[in-house]
Amino acid sequence: MLTVDQARDWLLQRARPLTTTETVPLLQALGRILATPLLSSQDVPPHDNSAMDGYAVRCADGSGPLPVSQRIPAGTQPAALQAGSVARIFTGAPIPAGADGVVMQEMAELQPDGQVAFSQSPRPGQNIRRAGEDIRCGSEVLSAGQQLSAAHLGLAASIGVAELTVFRPLRVAVFFTGDELVEPGQTLAAGQIYNSNRYWLVPELMRLGCEVTDLGIVPDSLSRTREILQDAAALADVIMTCGGVSVGEEDHVKAAVEAEGSLDLWKIAIKPGKPLASGRVGQAGFVGLPGNPVSGFVTYQVLVKPYLQRCAGLLADCGVAVQHYPAGFVWDRPDSRREEFLRVKLLQQDGQWQLQPYPNQGSGVLTSCAWADGLVRLAVGQQVRPGDLLGLLPIGRCGN
Amino acid sequence: MLTVDQARDWLLQRARPLTTTETVPLLQALGRILATPLLSSQDVPPHDNSAMDGYAVRCADGSGPLPVSQRIPAGTQPAALQAGSVARIFTGAPIPAGADGVVMQEMAELQPDGQVAFSQSPRPGQNIRRAGEDIRCGSEVLSAGQQLSAAHLGLAASIGVAELTVFRPLRVAVFFTGDELVEPGQTLAAGQIYNSNRYWLVPELMRLGCEVTDLGIVPDSLSRTREILQDAAALADVIMTCGGVSVGEEDHVKAAVEAEGSLDLWKIAIKPGKPLASGRVGQAGFVGLPGNPVSGFVTYQVLVKPYLQRCAGLLADCGVAVQHYPAGFVWDRPDSRREEFLRVKLLQQDGQWQLQPYPNQGSGVLTSCAWADGLVRLAVGQQVRPGDLLGLLPIGRCGN
Repeated sequence: MLTVDQARDWLLQRARPLTTTETVPLLQALGRILATPLLSSQDVPPHDNSAMDGYAVRCADGSGPLPVSQRIPAGTQPAALQAGSVARIFTGAPIPAGADGVVMQEMAELQPDGQVAFSQSPRPGQNIRRAGEDIRCGSEVLSAGQQLSAAHLGLAASIGVAELTVFRPLRVAVFFTGDELVEPGQTLAAGQIYNSNRYWLVPELMRLGCEVTDLGIVPDSLSRTREILQDAAALADVIMTCGGVSVGEEDHVKAAVEAEGSLDLWKIAIKPGKPLASGRVGQAGFVGLPGNPVSGFVTYQVLVKPYLQRCAGLLADCGVAVQHYPAGFVWDRPDSRREEFLRVKLLQQDGQWQLQPYPNQGSGVLTSCAWADGLVRLAVGQQVRPGDLLGLLPIGRCGN
Repeated sequence: MLTVDQARDWLLQRARPLTTTETVPLLQALGRILATPLLSSQDVPPHDNSAMDGYAVRCADGSGPLPVSQRIPAGTQPAALQAGSVARIFTGAPIPAGADGVVMQEMAELQPDGQVAFSQSPRPGQNIRRAGEDIRCGSEVLSAGQQLSAAHLGLAASIGVAELTVFRPLRVAVFFTGDELVEPGQTLAAGQIYNSNRYWLVPELMRLGCEVTDLGIVPDSLSRTREILQDAAALADVIMTCGGVSVGEEDHVKAAVEAEGSLDLWKIAIKPGKPLASGRVGQAGFVGLPGNPVSGFVTYQVLVKPYLQRCAGLLADCGVAVQHYPAGFVWDRPDSRREEFLRVKLLQQDGQWQLQPYPNQGSGVLTSCAWADGLVRLAVGQQVRPGDLLGLLPIGRCGN
């Protein structure tokens, strides 16, 4: 058996990151992966400007009273400040030539004759934001290989960038095998089960930003499975399926992938989980998740999602910052051969957040995954006592 | 000044949650908010089935050798098990009538005459998954008011549900004011700045699942702003803007909202931030964020996002489980009047995750927000020493 870390490393090494890029408008770049570093072609702020509503002054002129020679709202281009006068100025407005400080309005008194006096002598540079103080022209604003968030797009806009060069979306084709599978909405005959894998896997891939081709349920036949693999390899970067890759006798996926390409079947010391298939069909990568939905879901989160992110062009690991919380439970039946990934929830107990496991960790249905906030990784043989600090691998949810 | 909690409660109380629902296919329900609880109309598993590849037996028949009277792959409907025989059975396949246990194949020996002997006497119930063991018919599988994740959809599929009743998307109209604003891609004249607020706000709203109407930059005129508000109120549940609601003299948004509806201007003890406008125009809610992009971004994350989620029909708070990490920094210049939200990153130091603040917390550009993993909330006057545990409010990123 491979350890989880070995399997993860192996998959990451086999990932073939996208190289094709495209240029998209900012508002279409959310969640996309930046292909080239973004350098600023300008200073931000572009010019010295006022940090306050107040008065732009020549500090040498002292605390006044002084006449107001101009008014500078944001968005205007001021004339040079006449010596012996001040300029009414607003936050963000450019500092007029000749001025070397801004007095905030709270420190200024407008006198009946229209002149302004200050309660303190102004100091050179005060309340001025300097050109380039936030972003210097030529500096790297966003690095390549990161997934673009809303704040990234706002930042790009602030240096005048209207479009970004990103990798094209990763194309993933999925299909499902098993004569016992039925689509939801239909009635189950005896011995049939619903194809639940399709309905968590496709949304997970969508959330990752993949372009998903959903080839549905494929009849359990070698020739049909081979045809589907050929079709999928022609259009996708990665082909994924659930089930059909364990030692069961009714599976044709294994034989079909071996006939059309190459396949490694791994036994991984992961619970839930264990079998994972990885290979290639033509130019496409192939990943076969275990057919049990909980095993497939956990294997996807722990091993396959990082592989897909690497394929998509992501350079940094996403969400590697594992959070640690105290356990609110006892775990005294550790697995002696496999690392275990418990589905857990964060619950508040006496004002403190604690991890609680889903009661039925052995189930084959997704109740535990739908309920959980994330996964806790237990080492082989690891017991848990209340208060033990455990790392939490979050399962993404809720637009956060 | 209102405290952050007061402002948040006030906004939440003013939220008018959506009531209009629609029924959508599972694969279109990702990220939508469930409007009615989902009850299971069936048992899962639907019938007793085998937890193993092996042999279904009548335990009273003992450890054999016994003839194999049938073969039951998953997806088939077995005949009753003849007394004095066993059935070859595979994982997930239905238990034939009369059988009361499954012996895993590792404990069975197939003899030359085709009969099977077991190394131990089978015990009643062993390796059988009972009907309804995972989900009982009639039980609540998903509760109303939760945002649907991939696992939720997989779970719904596993009980045969093909579509879900969700709230329609929240409609949000946004516009931006200020004659100094220029769209990225154009050249800045002196005194102009790029409209960066549009490019973080619209994506944040998209990520939340809102239907966004982007009305762009509105000229600084009262009559034009009133027209835009009328248009927006006719089509949106919530109208949002950035800027134009502080004490500055060049703003018409305040007067326009007051003329077309009602407006409260709040000063909130939040840094960055402070001004926030909340009101109504016709049937639509109105929220005016501060115009400084960092202030707007932080105010959005802390106060406005929960309000929008409540409007959209979300019942539970999202991401309320604040994660705590040790500070890797000193903060000895606390604000004496406002709670402060530092933009921080999780960085690993000597194998431990620590929070580090962005060096320039005072900047008006989004560099700190684009760099950060989240926000740390400091109480009024709170100092920080290395190792202090601080709560982290994550800023969503990376499809997690």
